[in-house]
Amino acid sequence: MADPLRLGVAGLGTVGAGLVRIVQRNARLVEARGGRRVIISAVCARSRGKDRNLDLDGHGWEDDPVALARRDDVDVFVELMGGGEGPAKASVEAAIAAGKHVVTANKALLAEHGHALALAAEEARVALRFEAAVAGGIPIVKALSESLAGNEITRVLGVMNGTCNYILTRMWDAGLPYETVFEEASDLGYLEADPTLDVGGIDAAHKLALLVSIAFGERVKFDGIEIEGIERVSIDDIKQAADMGYRIKLLGVARRSGNGVEARMSPCLVPEGSPLGQLPGATNMVVVEGDSVNQIVLRGPGAGEGPTASAVMGDIVDIARNLVAPVFGQPAETLAEPIRIRGATPTPFYLRMTIADRPGALAKVAHALGEAGVSINRMRQYRHSEPHAPVLIMTHDCVPADLDRAIESLAVTGVVEGDPVAFRVEEV
Amino acid sequence: MADPLRLGVAGLGTVGAGLVRIVQRNARLVEARGGRRVIISAVCARSRGKDRNLDLDGHGWEDDPVALARRDDVDVFVELMGGGEGPAKASVEAAIAAGKHVVTANKALLAEHGHALALAAEEARVALRFEAAVAGGIPIVKALSESLAGNEITRVLGVMNGTCNYILTRMWDAGLPYETVFEEASDLGYLEADPTLDVGGIDAAHKLALLVSIAFGERVKFDGIEIEGIERVSIDDIKQAADMGYRIKLLGVARRSGNGVEARMSPCLVPEGSPLGQLPGATNMVVVEGDSVNQIVLRGPGAGEGPTASAVMGDIVDIARNLVAPVFGQPAETLAEPIRIRGATPTPFYLRMTIADRPGALAKVAHALGEAGVSINRMRQYRHSEPHAPVLIMTHDCVPADLDRAIESLAVTGVVEGDPVAFRVEEV
Repeated sequence: MADPLRLGVAGLGTVGAGLVRIVQRNARLVEARGGRRVIISAVCARSRGKDRNLDLDGHGWEDDPVALARRDDVDVFVELMGGGEGPAKASVEAAIAAGKHVVTANKALLAEHGHALALAAEEARVALRFEAAVAGGIPIVKALSESLAGNEITRVLGVMNGTCNYILTRMWDAGLPYETVFEEASDLGYLEADPTLDVGGIDAAHKLALLVSIAFGERVKFDGIEIEGIERVSIDDIKQAADMGYRIKLLGVARRSGNGVEARMSPCLVPEGSPLGQLPGATNMVVVEGDSVNQIVLRGPGAGEGPTASAVMGDIVDIARNLVAPVFGQPAETLAEPIRIRGATPTPFYLRMTIADRPGALAKVAHALGEAGVSINRMRQYRHSEPHAPVLIMTHDCVPADLDRAIESLAVTGVVEGDPVAFRVEEV
Repeated sequence: MADPLRLGVAGLGTVGAGLVRIVQRNARLVEARGGRRVIISAVCARSRGKDRNLDLDGHGWEDDPVALARRDDVDVFVELMGGGEGPAKASVEAAIAAGKHVVTANKALLAEHGHALALAAEEARVALRFEAAVAGGIPIVKALSESLAGNEITRVLGVMNGTCNYILTRMWDAGLPYETVFEEASDLGYLEADPTLDVGGIDAAHKLALLVSIAFGERVKFDGIEIEGIERVSIDDIKQAADMGYRIKLLGVARRSGNGVEARMSPCLVPEGSPLGQLPGATNMVVVEGDSVNQIVLRGPGAGEGPTASAVMGDIVDIARNLVAPVFGQPAETLAEPIRIRGATPTPFYLRMTIADRPGALAKVAHALGEAGVSINRMRQYRHSEPHAPVLIMTHDCVPADLDRAIESLAVTGVVEGDPVAFRVEEV
């Protein structure tokens, strides 16, 4: 039997505590599968005194994650602190420099610095693994970088933030306005310390950036991903979309487009009968389309102690077995310079606006859209609060540039109150 | 750049032809990801002359798969001939003996001889991979044996035969009887040469046997899996189940039970709103539940040239990268002796029978069930062809042994015509 694999665990929050529990609870199972014992040499967290209902006896303690990363009795540095800069970045860099393998759940760190870290890790011939950073317990990183390695990937899309999916699903189920459900989610502790990371789509976009790199063989690049949060999704939008057979989801979509890649994270209408349309609560789902496999769908818990720690443990067992694939699916120095194409793919758009309730107003709206080359598939004006009339429009396929022009010309009609809401329709 | 990885491809049917096309079409992609070129040294098939619309120039030819397996210019023997014995078994054994890696899509071979082959492969330190053998393009073997390695698996269930799911879905969608849809499927070429492999549940049970071994750390054992096909599922059953909020699927279910494992492949009622209940057409789906991950769901094409070849190619790229995990998730010599427990888990059952349409008949049925300790949740008698009255019963949780006793005692009531139909209800 080989020597044990020795972990240094930095961060004892939800995921870190979950990992410690798995290592303790499933030690025999993990040893049988990994071919060697997996033990925790030492841990590190902000406050040593804090009661975590964890048995840390026999594990060393470090106050400084960098010191933990450099310990001689650590083979794998497990970074579960989070944060795109600061201690997480410093300690991961230190671990790689010291020739330690790294497993992390840190999407922000990798979205911002993933390429440099991958180059360093491959140079040092150590693993840098991050299954837990994308969609929690769903093995999407492994599926994309290993199982589907024979495919030219044509599209990756999915729901990658459970909090946003909880909010949107709950709004629909209970008919409640965004603000009310946001408060509920906050009370339930579903939101990040900075909620805009969730509802602003940034957390989900970090994850999409990692999948784009693997799927399309590019260096990780967070800039250039179009990001729109769910703050502007109203209960009216959800009801009107449902009325037309759609659900609204915060959807990440990436596809090859010309000589580049189109990547966006935004509220989209998806068919209610599709797996994405039916995705409930805080669940995540990633759909991958490739030239050979056609389409596979992976669904599971996107967060939480057990599922995220499960993904971390999967990476650790791979390292125990010496299964170390390139960080982003091919050697980092061979990854292409990213070229971001803004929405070149025409899709239908859902448009919602409030117009003055007076003769000719609707005609002006229709005319403005036509002038911009946006043709109307369905249009509906429905009763609402006087003197304003809400108008719903489903366009035929158009590119965002045309839609932007159309929205500009709507502004000058003088009949549209405020800014129209526009969401893409993504067929799955 | 390392030496190219040289394949010997045995079998040029749907999957074999698909693999040759991927190797040719995505050569640059595969080289970038695998770190080396993947080339086909030679192929082998029944008839050399047959027009396959394939460019085989530059590939050697062998009439004998065993000779192909032993060629000096073959590093990986790819067995895509099928069949549990004969040339497939002989050539895979020859390849391992000659120190070649093996990739196969052959569920029958592995279900019957998987343990012996795994022992031989691990002894010879070569890979034996079979992602394509279970659920086509769905990466379930890798998910179970690698991604979820930190979990104690509590239940594995799924739809693993696309043809049966097509038949059952089509019966429901079109309201057609089994026989008619069976003919359709046959005309569409969906059925195996021996259709009982599909509709009898054997093909799907082969796949389940492989998943059981990985999930529960046992030697592969096909015997002892309870198997019931879909031949007895009538359009009436499908309609009545739907009326109660269920769909009928040919479902493989495996769970730990006492000191053994319960494994069955049989028609089950699943909630219509669940991912399994909504699974359309020939699609496959596998649901895995573990102590940390809770539940993940994988959905995708269960067969077809592209998807199955995609899975084969994923295994090949792993070998190109020297990622070789134990065949069944842990070293074969450490796998436990299988202990099969017959249905110890109580579940509700759907019971359908035809009784004589005369006073007291229903009472006799209810009494017989009660005597056997099977309590009735819902019971319904509905109009049908005189003089017989169809009766539907949904029981409360009970174990199959009690249900069997109940069915025996029904026979002696003298009011039940023929054999009652009984299907499990599986909650997901």
